[in-house]
Amino acid sequence: MLIDTPFDQEMAERGLAGVTYGQGSRFRFNAPKAAADLGAAAALVRSVGGANFRIPHAGATGLDDNKRIPAAAVTVEDALLIGRLAARGPMKMRLTLTPQNLPEADSYNVIADWPGTDKADEVVVVSGHLDSWDLATGAHDDGAGVVAAMGVVETLKKLDYRPRRTIRVIAWMNEENGGRGGQAYFEAHKQALGKQYAAIEMDSGAGRPFGILASVGAKAEKLFAPLRAALQPMGAHAFTRRDALGTGDLHRLETGGVPSFEPLVDSHSYFHYHHTPADTLDKVDPDNLKRNVALMSSLAWFLANIDGEIGRAPEQGE
Amino acid sequence: MLIDTPFDQEMAERGLAGVTYGQGSRFRFNAPKAAADLGAAAALVRSVGGANFRIPHAGATGLDDNKRIPAAAVTVEDALLIGRLAARGPMKMRLTLTPQNLPEADSYNVIADWPGTDKADEVVVVSGHLDSWDLATGAHDDGAGVVAAMGVVETLKKLDYRPRRTIRVIAWMNEENGGRGGQAYFEAHKQALGKQYAAIEMDSGAGRPFGILASVGAKAEKLFAPLRAALQPMGAHAFTRRDALGTGDLHRLETGGVPSFEPLVDSHSYFHYHHTPADTLDKVDPDNLKRNVALMSSLAWFLANIDGEIGRAPEQGE
Repeated sequence: MLIDTPFDQEMAERGLAGVTYGQGSRFRFNAPKAAADLGAAAALVRSVGGANFRIPHAGATGLDDNKRIPAAAVTVEDALLIGRLAARGPMKMRLTLTPQNLPEADSYNVIADWPGTDKADEVVVVSGHLDSWDLATGAHDDGAGVVAAMGVVETLKKLDYRPRRTIRVIAWMNEENGGRGGQAYFEAHKQALGKQYAAIEMDSGAGRPFGILASVGAKAEKLFAPLRAALQPMGAHAFTRRDALGTGDLHRLETGGVPSFEPLVDSHSYFHYHHTPADTLDKVDPDNLKRNVALMSSLAWFLANIDGEIGRAPEQGE
Repeated sequence: MLIDTPFDQEMAERGLAGVTYGQGSRFRFNAPKAAADLGAAAALVRSVGGANFRIPHAGATGLDDNKRIPAAAVTVEDALLIGRLAARGPMKMRLTLTPQNLPEADSYNVIADWPGTDKADEVVVVSGHLDSWDLATGAHDDGAGVVAAMGVVETLKKLDYRPRRTIRVIAWMNEENGGRGGQAYFEAHKQALGKQYAAIEMDSGAGRPFGILASVGAKAEKLFAPLRAALQPMGAHAFTRRDALGTGDLHRLETGGVPSFEPLVDSHSYFHYHHTPADTLDKVDPDNLKRNVALMSSLAWFLANIDGEIGRAPEQGE
């Protein structure tokens, strides 16, 4: 999950662990640029992740291209040590940083359509992102999201359902490194954005879902009462409206006016693993992943079949 | 804490997390030798620690000197991956292991005596060990033990107490790599072992203490009733007798018949950090460290002042 967008305040408020992650990652994102402006030779940030096991946690960092300085994250333990040493007086550090910027290369969104019936020209996107951060293998961020999106079609087909609108599974490319997959999709469809009926992305880990985050107009909230009633037995009937979700991939569609959705999940352990080499499959609880598939399937089915418009986000003149 | 002694069964049973650690570390200790006997080229063990953050957990490994093969610990995540790959069929691995055996060098136990009054020739040892495992900085294992031992004298002096027997603070050397500090001390005192009245070591981390582990004769248990009553207000009045504690440093004294003691602590998170680079000071809860100092001080004061003999462990003919 890329959280350092103009919406990071919103994003920080939407989750559980996301609140403190949002606060911490603002330092990671903004401090190197501020340090460069003050003439610093380099900038280090204390890792923002939630578990302290001597592994660094990295993420997006904001630097002006014409004023780039070395910037790195150190483990919480080492940050504490540096703090104790700095309190004793001036200190010297020697940094050996190994990251490389490799040449640009082609990569692709992976898209599969399950055609609808009488409204097949309208699309409901269900999605996760295919890339992962740096050293992370990306089980929670965002392999789980891609699997859940695929699980939507599998589930509805097993039930012998057939949606009125087309359900489009998208595994986005380049979420972590700029969101260019989402941008390319937006560019390809911006002339007929009204046909993008709604979009769902799961990208806050496969914690237990307790409802839906929705970037829809305020008046649209009441439309979802039947869906919420259907989700009540699994305790996932919360419905939180936002003016913007700010997910990395749906961001452009959303600001273009496409109603956007995300599972509202228990993310208390998400930032223990997110963007670290420990974000591996064993951290994904299969039952909670199934609950997310159930929630995404219910939401996608609902969106693919209701009549009329949901109501666009306020940017489009609510 | 070195747990791969002949007493590992005992040791495994004495703690909380220690039970499963004892079970797991038996594989780490014994499997490489068994593999070498079967002609294996190398042996890998799944990390035995309790937290899965892609960091390996290593510890003592048993190999015959004339049949040494490479042996290493892999992270839990990587062990799971190797298991999945192995289930598909034969697999090849290339190991790059970097440990070195450096030449032997002199090192020392660090010893400080606080002389007693009328029984100054009798000694009560309070101790922890000075060395740490490999990459670990050793805050819980066993910086906390050394600090608590020093804290015993500080505490009793602040109270203006003066013990009848000499209280000897020992920071043992070489616990992790063979226990030669404890052996050297035993060799130096074995002709007059009766003057070593009792020995305490704290080496299971600075978790909240809830009582005392004691390697004493069965009949001695009742002697400790007044001490247990004194510890009751802090909830540390459990008293568990064992035929042997099996701590790395007191082992020789104990088998020689010296009554030996250890705080009984909540070790549920000890093996999350033990023997890893994450065993740093921020993991030590200051309140629990103080509780351990209080328990060690009470125990040392009690042992330094009671009349008569405690009763030796059964090896000495209880």
